[in-house]
Amino acid sequence: MKIGIIGLGLIGGSFALSAKKSIPDCSLYGTDNNPVHQKEAYQLGIINKSLTPSNYSQMDVIILAVPVNAVLEIILPLLDQINDNALLIDVGSTKEIICEKVKLHSKRNQFLATHPIAGTEFSGPSAANENLYKGKAQILCEVNKTRPDLLEWAVQWFKNMEMRIQEMGPIEHDQHIAYVSHISHISSFMLGKTVMEKEKDEKAIFDMAGSGFASTVRLAKSSPSMWAPIFMQNKKNILDVLTEYISNLEEFKQLMQANDYESIYQKIEHTNTIKRILEGIK
Amino acid sequence: MKIGIIGLGLIGGSFALSAKKSIPDCSLYGTDNNPVHQKEAYQLGIINKSLTPSNYSQMDVIILAVPVNAVLEIILPLLDQINDNALLIDVGSTKEIICEKVKLHSKRNQFLATHPIAGTEFSGPSAANENLYKGKAQILCEVNKTRPDLLEWAVQWFKNMEMRIQEMGPIEHDQHIAYVSHISHISSFMLGKTVMEKEKDEKAIFDMAGSGFASTVRLAKSSPSMWAPIFMQNKKNILDVLTEYISNLEEFKQLMQANDYESIYQKIEHTNTIKRILEGIK
Repeated sequence: MKIGIIGLGLIGGSFALSAKKSIPDCSLYGTDNNPVHQKEAYQLGIINKSLTPSNYSQMDVIILAVPVNAVLEIILPLLDQINDNALLIDVGSTKEIICEKVKLHSKRNQFLATHPIAGTEFSGPSAANENLYKGKAQILCEVNKTRPDLLEWAVQWFKNMEMRIQEMGPIEHDQHIAYVSHISHISSFMLGKTVMEKEKDEKAIFDMAGSGFASTVRLAKSSPSMWAPIFMQNKKNILDVLTEYISNLEEFKQLMQANDYESIYQKIEHTNTIKRILEGIK
Repeated sequence: MKIGIIGLGLIGGSFALSAKKSIPDCSLYGTDNNPVHQKEAYQLGIINKSLTPSNYSQMDVIILAVPVNAVLEIILPLLDQINDNALLIDVGSTKEIICEKVKLHSKRNQFLATHPIAGTEFSGPSAANENLYKGKAQILCEVNKTRPDLLEWAVQWFKNMEMRIQEMGPIEHDQHIAYVSHISHISSFMLGKTVMEKEKDEKAIFDMAGSGFASTVRLAKSSPSMWAPIFMQNKKNILDVLTEYISNLEEFKQLMQANDYESIYQKIEHTNTIKRILEGIK
């Protein structure tokens, strides 16, 4: 079986390593527009050969693991070039615009829209890990638009990787993911920015910051190439939750200004119920 | 040596366990205004005996590990009651108001103001851990106001616990700590609140939230009894950094509304320099 991976970073590289482990007799073909990453992926044994437009049609499966703006640029030409029994899987963090883009293509039924809920704040092939997806959720959108035999193969593969399969519509996906992922990144990017601006003394940050600070700004290490396009493609939902977040912070500020620490106590106590929710996150 | 601990939660309990490990022949006397915690601390072997006003004067050292509002209420009566060679150590997250409170007391030189930069989002005696402070920063304020022999003993003890000693003024402490700790908690409390309000479908949070969400809202599990008083006592510095944080989020929102993803890219890229800072946080 020939598997092509476009984008050899954390996400694509981890799919390649998972495929090597879970699919017998598979050959991994890969490409990355960063030549250093391409070379590194060879050296780390993530891929066996180069994926090029000339061998696209030989692939049985192609995983598209590039930033979501690049997905929009290459997805239609890619569908044109795959063979009539191949499956194209996209793994981006937005789904509505991508599903909309492919909906009229003659090979729409050879496409599967997915979002594996996994990742770290690290990037590049060296961050790839064959167990990244183990136990993680794999969201599938519009499964009824994918050819049943191709869908069945993909679902079985994800199950072999021990992923938890969830199905939902692309619009619903983009709304939920704005709440539980995209807003966390904005909160963390702007918190990191604020602290670096206010705290001119870097040594004080080193010396005084504890694990709480490190935890809340961990996502501020995430890549702009990946995240700026996500914010663009999920604009409406993100603006909605960001507006609410700013409004909650404003209200907190006003309570502090009014010395109403009793209300602050109650807000914190209520928010503590998130413990129960966090315990459910695998 | 007799050591008294007032407040047997995560912080006080961990000091008790560290003392058992690092001070030969010490007896631990403890008290907590929650009788369940007091009993639990016995059962877990954190303390040997009850600390009561009748035996305050027998203690060689007393650690005050209660919420910072309670510190203000009991610190002067406590100083009145300790013997003339005892040391009282406070370990709260604010320092200016506490140092101000004791400055005219006749036993001011038997007091040491500290802030150990350690903790987790868990609370109570069962969260206590003898290694909580190992490798962590211990901030000492106004060391020149503490009797040299008592200060020397305390510093040696903290060093035996493998803490990194830092000295700074209480005003400077409260400013830096607003940046690197207090604002992270507000960011996390309000993020947790926002997501729980917007995402009515709790199951979607369980299923779709990944480690990034868990990381940014981890601190939202922190106790209101501990945190509301900290926000009250460090109001000025926190309002200052909170205002800046809200303004950065507003600017991010406006860039999204204007579809200026190039500027968003640049902001994220600049914030990525926090990687270097985070690598320095032990």
